Amino acid sequence: MENSLTNMLSIQYPIIQAPMAGGITTSSLVSSVSNAGGLGMIGAGYLDASGLQSQIREVKSLTDHPFGVNVFILQKAETTEEEIKKAYDLLQPYREELQIQSEVPTFSNTKTFEEQINVIIEEKVPVVSFTFGLPSKEVISMLKEKEITVMGTATTVKEAMMVEELGMDAVVVQGSEAGGHRGHFLREAGESLIGLMSLIPQVTDHVTIPVIAAGGIMDGRGIVAASVLGAKGVQMGTAFVTCKESGAHPLYKEAILHASEDEAVLTKAFSGKEARSIQNQFINEMKQHESHLPPYPIQNTLTSGIRKSAKQVNKPEYMSLWSGQSPRLSKNITVEELFQKMISDVAQLRVPLSFE
Amino acid sequence: MENSLTNMLSIQYPIIQAPMAGGITTSSLVSSVSNAGGLGMIGAGYLDASGLQSQIREVKSLTDHPFGVNVFILQKAETTEEEIKKAYDLLQPYREELQIQSEVPTFSNTKTFEEQINVIIEEKVPVVSFTFGLPSKEVISMLKEKEITVMGTATTVKEAMMVEELGMDAVVVQGSEAGGHRGHFLREAGESLIGLMSLIPQVTDHVTIPVIAAGGIMDGRGIVAASVLGAKGVQMGTAFVTCKESGAHPLYKEAILHASEDEAVLTKAFSGKEARSIQNQFINEMKQHESHLPPYPIQNTLTSGIRKSAKQVNKPEYMSLWSGQSPRLSKNITVEELFQKMISDVAQLRVPLSFE
Repeated sequence: MENSLTNMLSIQYPIIQAPMAGGITTSSLVSSVSNAGGLGMIGAGYLDASGLQSQIREVKSLTDHPFGVNVFILQKAETTEEEIKKAYDLLQPYREELQIQSEVPTFSNTKTFEEQINVIIEEKVPVVSFTFGLPSKEVISMLKEKEITVMGTATTVKEAMMVEELGMDAVVVQGSEAGGHRGHFLREAGESLIGLMSLIPQVTDHVTIPVIAAGGIMDGRGIVAASVLGAKGVQMGTAFVTCKESGAHPLYKEAILHASEDEAVLTKAFSGKEARSIQNQFINEMKQHESHLPPYPIQNTLTSGIRKSAKQVNKPEYMSLWSGQSPRLSKNITVEELFQKMISDVAQLRVPLSFE
Repeated sequence: MENSLTNMLSIQYPIIQAPMAGGITTSSLVSSVSNAGGLGMIGAGYLDASGLQSQIREVKSLTDHPFGVNVFILQKAETTEEEIKKAYDLLQPYREELQIQSEVPTFSNTKTFEEQINVIIEEKVPVVSFTFGLPSKEVISMLKEKEITVMGTATTVKEAMMVEELGMDAVVVQGSEAGGHRGHFLREAGESLIGLMSLIPQVTDHVTIPVIAAGGIMDGRGIVAASVLGAKGVQMGTAFVTCKESGAHPLYKEAILHASEDEAVLTKAFSGKEARSIQNQFINEMKQHESHLPPYPIQNTLTSGIRKSAKQVNKPEYMSLWSGQSPRLSKNITVEELFQKMISDVAQLRVPLSFE
């Protein structure tokens, strides 16, 4: 049967590896996914132009198959010097424990976004997706002129309709199950936490572009269920974090592999933006301060040294342990093994359904 | 193909109408569902023994098929006179607007639960389900001795495992998508909001009794998706609220029929217990007081007059408008029409999946 998404992306299986910024989506992970027949994605969120360019070139050296890059659309962060200083002070005990020397960082507008887009065009990356907001029509046209496939991210029906109206080629719908940062941009995070069982059919009733389901999907069951609900493909994050090829810290992988579904909680503690992580000491201790934290990406920058140092000293209690709501389904295997398992699971699921 | 749930319940289709207390599950609704081949359920939560007995007899007069009754397991509400008085005073403006005369109600321990169980046994009701907690082993044995099928409600894997360990016959797993009250009893509500895409496969990996999926399921797509994820049946609430036979207020039905998915929000305003309702004035105004409200069922009793009066004067802004996250899929049709549509949708969905 024809699948509009695999045709559009020139891939074999409608399985996209979620672009996870911060070192998880190594070139090895991205290329392994593309080589296995899915679409590997570089999380470019925290990469500057030259970092992005060198990773793109590395991925190209490892696969001849299509891959993609994800870019953040950052809103201007509304904050004050005072709010930043307060949040900085709040983190002082963690810096002391980890023996980190740091001043209050200064924040300036950067041209990262424009530079990332230029690199993507220059390097002829086949697919680009956007998160946290919508790119301008101009950027979309510029990319499409270069025959780059453009995907948006939505958490509600209205957001998905806006992605389609802007002329993007496909939309990733992020269910409340999803790990990492929420991609909402119209309403508050709390009002944009729609479970995939509800979100997929309501979105597919309202848009004509292919819908890619993201959130809690880890195996053949999730893939087939998403397909039945109307999605043309899936985007999986957590399932790839624990793969051998992922750049996640070994103790971060362990945390997912041993977590239960109710331990993957929403927190603003790490970045100032709602994200789902395995519950740990940092999340629990910062919970009472959540409403006063500076917005993304300010808080993200403020905690960056702590998270980096926590990795160096093997302290998962201070790491961001992004995970969706299905950690019990995670496996520590290779990308190739994961694909083989999913493909055979999907084949097995073509059994008569319970209505008979 | 054999379905363990339809066999167990002696019904044709693995579709259970969610027991919705407060007048929605009229005898007409319950019997229509059972007559259509599903399992109708009486929401007995707010019924005393004689009210429950007369509804059971009415349902029996309208159908020869099995039906069920749902019973609340109430925890002792920890509160103080002062907290009750404060919450009462907070509601004074609403009572004044609606011209309701009322004193601060007194709360006493009642024997409703034992009486409800006695009626259920006396009337030989085929199926009983429990919400908000676990019944004792003694109650379960007593019911099973009378060949009554016993079902529990769970929101996490651990809760589902406890339902099985206690010897219950099946477990309803309530996803974060579900409308009305949350059925969590081990952790906080916020930590028990697991989307069905994550919840169903993780629960079915850990229990052997049939799993019934509840939350946001409104049509054939949701039924088949739940089945693929491992559920043996579905429990649907919102889809039946807007049916012709439901006892929901006409403006409550209208609110669901015109709502979008992001308007079905979680609130403690009506009852002191987290529940999902279409957002309205009462929810918005009470939001700032949520953390200080007395627990369920105290706050529920305190707002009961306001909700009743709101129905009389056709003011949906003060009604509890319970709804799951899929209101865009709701239809104002008869139960028979809904079943025919679902059955034909399920048949149509047996198409080759996108992996081909």
